Amino acid sequence: TKRYSITLLPGDGIGPEVISVAKNVLKLVGSLEGIEFSFQEMPMGGAALDLTGVPLPEETLSAAQRADAVLLGAIGGYKWDKNEKLLKPETGLLQLREGLKVFANLRPATVLPQLVDSSTLKKDVAEGVDLIVVRELTGGIYFGKPRGFGTNEKGEDIGFNTEVYSTHEIDRIARVAFEIARKRRGQLCSVDKANVLEASMLWRKRVTAIASEYPDVELSHMYVDNATMQLVRYPKQFDTIVTNNIFGDILSDEASMITGSIGMLPSASLGESGPGLFEPIHGSAPDIAGQDKANPLATILSAAMLLKYGLGEANAANRIENAVLDTLNRGFRTGDIYSTGNKLVGCKEMGEEVLKSV
Amino acid sequence: TKRYSITLLPGDGIGPEVISVAKNVLKLVGSLEGIEFSFQEMPMGGAALDLTGVPLPEETLSAAQRADAVLLGAIGGYKWDKNEKLLKPETGLLQLREGLKVFANLRPATVLPQLVDSSTLKKDVAEGVDLIVVRELTGGIYFGKPRGFGTNEKGEDIGFNTEVYSTHEIDRIARVAFEIARKRRGQLCSVDKANVLEASMLWRKRVTAIASEYPDVELSHMYVDNATMQLVRYPKQFDTIVTNNIFGDILSDEASMITGSIGMLPSASLGESGPGLFEPIHGSAPDIAGQDKANPLATILSAAMLLKYGLGEANAANRIENAVLDTLNRGFRTGDIYSTGNKLVGCKEMGEEVLKSV
Ligand SMILES: CC(C)[C@H](C(=O)O)[C@@H](O)C(=O)O
Ligand SMILES: CC(C)[C@H](C(=O)O)[C@@H](O)C(=O)O
Repeated sequence: TKRYSITLLPGDGIGPEVISVAKNVLKLVGSLEGIEFSFQEMPMGGAALDLTGVPLPEETLSAAQRADAVLLGAIGGYKWDKNEKLLKPETGLLQLREGLKVFANLRPATVLPQLVDSSTLKKDVAEGVDLIVVRELTGGIYFGKPRGFGTNEKGEDIGFNTEVYSTHEIDRIARVAFEIARKRRGQLCSVDKANVLEASMLWRKRVTAIASEYPDVELSHMYVDNATMQLVRYPKQFDTIVTNNIFGDILSDEASMITGSIGMLPSASLGESGPGLFEPIHGSAPDIAGQDKANPLATILSAAMLLKYGLGEANAANRIENAVLDTLNRGFRTGDIYSTGNKLVGCKEMGEEVLKSV
Repeated sequence: TKRYSITLLPGDGIGPEVISVAKNVLKLVGSLEGIEFSFQEMPMGGAALDLTGVPLPEETLSAAQRADAVLLGAIGGYKWDKNEKLLKPETGLLQLREGLKVFANLRPATVLPQLVDSSTLKKDVAEGVDLIVVRELTGGIYFGKPRGFGTNEKGEDIGFNTEVYSTHEIDRIARVAFEIARKRRGQLCSVDKANVLEASMLWRKRVTAIASEYPDVELSHMYVDNATMQLVRYPKQFDTIVTNNIFGDILSDEASMITGSIGMLPSASLGESGPGLFEPIHGSAPDIAGQDKANPLATILSAAMLLKYGLGEANAANRIENAVLDTLNRGFRTGDIYSTGNKLVGCKEMGEEVLKSV
């Protein structure tokens, strides 16, 4: 039996509900694949703020650092929205990414044939979309220094941030993206704003240089304003997209919404070594929290990414992905992806159906 | 007779074709409204590079500064794509914006009933979209200092830019946006990334403060990643959007593409005083340049914005807008917006039909 320790961070809103379901799926799949998980639940986000006064307690970070992988539910809620920056749930998430050094954020956006009608895009535009955004996650304007508030020469208050990338940071995220593109359809599109920003010029230069290590991958470049349009116009043109932290924040969310089913989408955040961080892309949805209405499939699929990218357990991951597809094929839908003719279920029941399909 | 001087900057690719058509429309409308225009054509972009070695010659900038308004076609093309930064057509455009101090970029995105099928969005999502993005145009990361290349503590090469906003810059763009929202449906959505960036925190604080001057306008705030999703999910929720330079670059293009007809969309860039800059949002389309295939309607509608926002000639502006609608109603379409049952025309013929409708 293989043994892995998983730190679970249920977080806020619907987080605890979806994590509890995903945990059961991991357990069952583990037992079928000869894998034993030990789970440790730790507070994070608003839940941690209420309990300990900070959004990422030291014990939570060190538990996560010691684990083989980390599965996060969701964080945030109205209650903490007005908190000062250091006491926001989001700050805890940024600290967690930094603390785990997970510089590569993988955001697949796939339109499943079963759910093509959920997209606001016309059917012929949406069907067959299957792309992944590789977002740099621990650099750029999110973490760049100097940052803060001050006064300019005219005595006016200013707020400022620094967008900065080093060759090392660009090279390593580029390699992750090329590796992923190589295993997919062999097309990598690097998105930047190299017609204006020096940080983007270096980005483009380094991504182009790294391309020589991957002659089997076709590299193209696109400006971010054009990319945002092309995702709406003809999303099928994209296979793998690589971009910086802030553009990745924007483009990965746009790509997600194009699928029309953000309740279905997982994500993985990986470092050089050490545990990866896996989480659904949806938020904490405080309006439906505690009502057993959440769609647990994004978290279940995040558990699949955890198995595949975090632990190298591809068979177990495939089992989960197939179980999710089978559950959809059997017609089970939570409210967010419901359409007439299907069977409307809650979070727990959806989880039970996935267990049956495993 | 009122007299206005207009600097025309035809630029590159299809720029000269669409400018020539729009000039004729301005002339005719002027003669009907008792307005006399004097036009001065100046080189800009790639055309200026070929002629003078720089993308924005001094004579062009000073002619533009002395004019009552500036109408630009489009700039850029493959030929100059590999130029170093100072010798790129785009750099000329940034210098022009800076030189004219046009800090407020107005980007309407409207889905006309005649063209709703051009959108890749489902009909019920696209129809009725009528929003405007107010983008800050002379600040933020586009112009912030320090910027450039260097080395970090580890000896790695870096590229860096500064996102910076002052209270003065935020207040004035906020006022422009509130004024516009007030004349529209009274809803202003300010887009930022205040959960991460200090520059955005100041942005949100100042926009909120300015709101007290406009009790009749309803202000909301949205994070940029969410805004990019909401534009795809339910674009009709937006009336007026105000945002910084880089987010505005991204969101205004996304909003444009959602209409499905970027060949129809005009823009205006306005300063505190002095001439405004008006241009279609589409590029120079080098692949169809010189073939009389370009859609001149975006430039004609930019001329209408010039009359309305640049010269205060609302009647003349309305005449143009109505003529464009009438031409569409009579079934004339350039290739980019053509659908069966309509009459396919070239750039010049479309211009002549608009003249008939004036
Ligand atoms: C919550 C926020 C800080 C975060 C980000 O901007 O990275 C979120 O939008 C995301 O994409 O995970
Ligand atoms: C050409 C480029 C510098 C420019 C910008 O980014 O502002 C363009 O994309 C625009 O939006 O007008």
